[in-house]
Amino acid sequence: MISDTSTMRELATQAKQAAYAMAQAPTQQKNDLLHRMAEALEQRASFLLEENQKDLLEANQRGLSAAMLDRLRLTASRITKMAEGCNEVAALPDPVYELSDFVSRPSGIKVGRMRIPLGLVAIIYESRPNVTADAAALCLKSGNGVILRGGSEALHSNRAIIAVLHQVLQQHGLPPQVVSFVDTPDRAAMLDLLQLEEVIDLVIPRGGEGLIRFVAEHSRIPVIKHYKGTCHIFVDAAADLDMATKITVNAKVDRPGVCNAVETLLVHQAVAATFLPRLQAALAPHQVTLRGCPRTMDLLPDIERATEEDWPAEYLDLILAIKIVDHLEQAVAHIRQHGSLHTESIITNDHAAAMAFLHQVDSSSVMINASTRFADGGEYGLGAEIGISTSKLHAYGPMGLRELTTQKFVVFGQGEVRSS
Amino acid sequence: MISDTSTMRELATQAKQAAYAMAQAPTQQKNDLLHRMAEALEQRASFLLEENQKDLLEANQRGLSAAMLDRLRLTASRITKMAEGCNEVAALPDPVYELSDFVSRPSGIKVGRMRIPLGLVAIIYESRPNVTADAAALCLKSGNGVILRGGSEALHSNRAIIAVLHQVLQQHGLPPQVVSFVDTPDRAAMLDLLQLEEVIDLVIPRGGEGLIRFVAEHSRIPVIKHYKGTCHIFVDAAADLDMATKITVNAKVDRPGVCNAVETLLVHQAVAATFLPRLQAALAPHQVTLRGCPRTMDLLPDIERATEEDWPAEYLDLILAIKIVDHLEQAVAHIRQHGSLHTESIITNDHAAAMAFLHQVDSSSVMINASTRFADGGEYGLGAEIGISTSKLHAYGPMGLRELTTQKFVVFGQGEVRSS
Repeated sequence: MISDTSTMRELATQAKQAAYAMAQAPTQQKNDLLHRMAEALEQRASFLLEENQKDLLEANQRGLSAAMLDRLRLTASRITKMAEGCNEVAALPDPVYELSDFVSRPSGIKVGRMRIPLGLVAIIYESRPNVTADAAALCLKSGNGVILRGGSEALHSNRAIIAVLHQVLQQHGLPPQVVSFVDTPDRAAMLDLLQLEEVIDLVIPRGGEGLIRFVAEHSRIPVIKHYKGTCHIFVDAAADLDMATKITVNAKVDRPGVCNAVETLLVHQAVAATFLPRLQAALAPHQVTLRGCPRTMDLLPDIERATEEDWPAEYLDLILAIKIVDHLEQAVAHIRQHGSLHTESIITNDHAAAMAFLHQVDSSSVMINASTRFADGGEYGLGAEIGISTSKLHAYGPMGLRELTTQKFVVFGQGEVRSS
Repeated sequence: MISDTSTMRELATQAKQAAYAMAQAPTQQKNDLLHRMAEALEQRASFLLEENQKDLLEANQRGLSAAMLDRLRLTASRITKMAEGCNEVAALPDPVYELSDFVSRPSGIKVGRMRIPLGLVAIIYESRPNVTADAAALCLKSGNGVILRGGSEALHSNRAIIAVLHQVLQQHGLPPQVVSFVDTPDRAAMLDLLQLEEVIDLVIPRGGEGLIRFVAEHSRIPVIKHYKGTCHIFVDAAADLDMATKITVNAKVDRPGVCNAVETLLVHQAVAATFLPRLQAALAPHQVTLRGCPRTMDLLPDIERATEEDWPAEYLDLILAIKIVDHLEQAVAHIRQHGSLHTESIITNDHAAAMAFLHQVDSSSVMINASTRFADGGEYGLGAEIGISTSKLHAYGPMGLRELTTQKFVVFGQGEVRSS
């Protein structure tokens, strides 16, 4: 049982020492390790399912929702997906120790940058036990140590996955502390962890907005935040309306419960009367509820009226807010006021409008003529994703292996000294 | 007088709006602006000197130290240096809107990254009024808005510099709020400012460790920290001892009061008996006080004994701590335990030792056969420097224009949609 400050400090200090060893592991050793982890997770599937049953039983007794139970549940195919995830991370290029940006300086020194692991990363997450294996794989491939703190509802499942990973680490001669686990649901332990700024280099919370705000408010360690995705599509005056319809339908209905689904549609006044009835017809078979601004209501009188609460809302549901704007600048201003810096897309065939949108919208993903649903590490070619950052420091947008590293300066000299 | 929360929020909100305009300014306009600022600072030199006199008078009455008075003082040549700084920033390449890393994805979309300004940056600093002009120049060139909060002791000087910059901004048709100034020495106003995480994107404190810790502890906004520089030189078994002597003398005595001066010397046992007496002789004319570990004391019996407090110390003075180590790994372990992640240099002609040091030391600058004094934005070719980061997130080491920007993802599509 780990619950007092000194014990959390000890856990983190040991993890940091192990992380120094991990940072030196050659690419081939890291890839072998990840392939062996994948094999071990599949071989121990029945053990993982048994332990998961304990969590499901307790969750049932505590009356958790069907959606929560689904997120918590491991199945044979979900275990296979975890294993595949490890293999996919093994296949990604290793960013560690990449040298770049070398210049020769007038003093004689050669200055460049070397990419290095961050050191020790803490991941704080809820429900889904697959995060345990996914996050471990990404942190190990990028040469980091990791401290995992999962939700109390998944304690047996997470413990079981950790036990499997630890066995593989030991077989590879690597310190198991490189994947450390906070083996207590105690919130005080998490608070202790969040104070260890001199040992832990980064905290990534993964879960609902409540968890992320809690971690951000209590952490002395830098936090990568992703509060929510209030994504916008702007249908410009010069949009191909068939394309605009197809993209809006896809962005809303493909998976309405995820953060890159569109929540608000902004429509240029010049095409609103033509476009909106077509869109309404295309969305009708998908049972999407529309909520419109007064000008939208004039065109679609049977829909709901949008209130001020609708504009910043992340519905995560089959609801779409619609606002007619006079011009692109008004669309940009609306996005700046109500957006969440996640993903916005313009639909247009006007190059100047496309470029103006691209330059003026400062969200982490800005798209031209594409569905917001593409905002995803896998779709962007980063491989597995450790999270999506919607704050501009360090990482912005989907975070892959590169975002788990930093760059230090390296200087090659031949005895140069500096004179003031 | 700006002192309550709502007023600080208003100041920041106006600065953020102005920052959006600044982000769109073309490179040529930004460069013209910086050249005009340089001219205006020189033309208004007598006004700046008059206002600076008021600060100096008050500081004298309050009994500030000679060193503090020196930092506070403006002179004709210091004003010329400020102006030159603006011109130098104008000459740097513009990082904003640079596109990179484009890939075509199987879905058909093209994904790349676009470099964009951070948005609104707050700089909190002490004493030196030149920071007002230097920080403004770097933030404007990188397309950011800036909120400046200087020390109470420099209020008249800072106000005067801001007045000159505002006049130039207005002449260029740019909103003066893009360089906003907290025109009150009230600490409560600074605390209000540090809460505005939804408006301000980054806080950079520049000054003593006390100021930096205060800002880091009270900020809800990401902070770039640079607490101190406890820099190390490791003289390896295979070092050229003439080079080691020359570099150590330079790194200690060239400017002992700055953060990239060496504070602790680690010496491989194989060369200690030959090297240390030579080094002592070379340092003698510079009045450097040596503090040694017990093994060093055996070789240099007349020096002071180092205590545990010496190893993490940033002396900023003509004092050098010396420790003899058995091997490179012990040097690395000492640096990890006591270092500040600023700058470390190995002196060696052994390639394997050089590479091991380069990979194992995770400080923000790691050098081979060069003086730690080179750890500096100007020496690295970044141009002017907004600070040095010793935490690994976002920026690590000297920070130039690039570190005042971030990268968003951009997606070019032709109507692509995603199917789950």
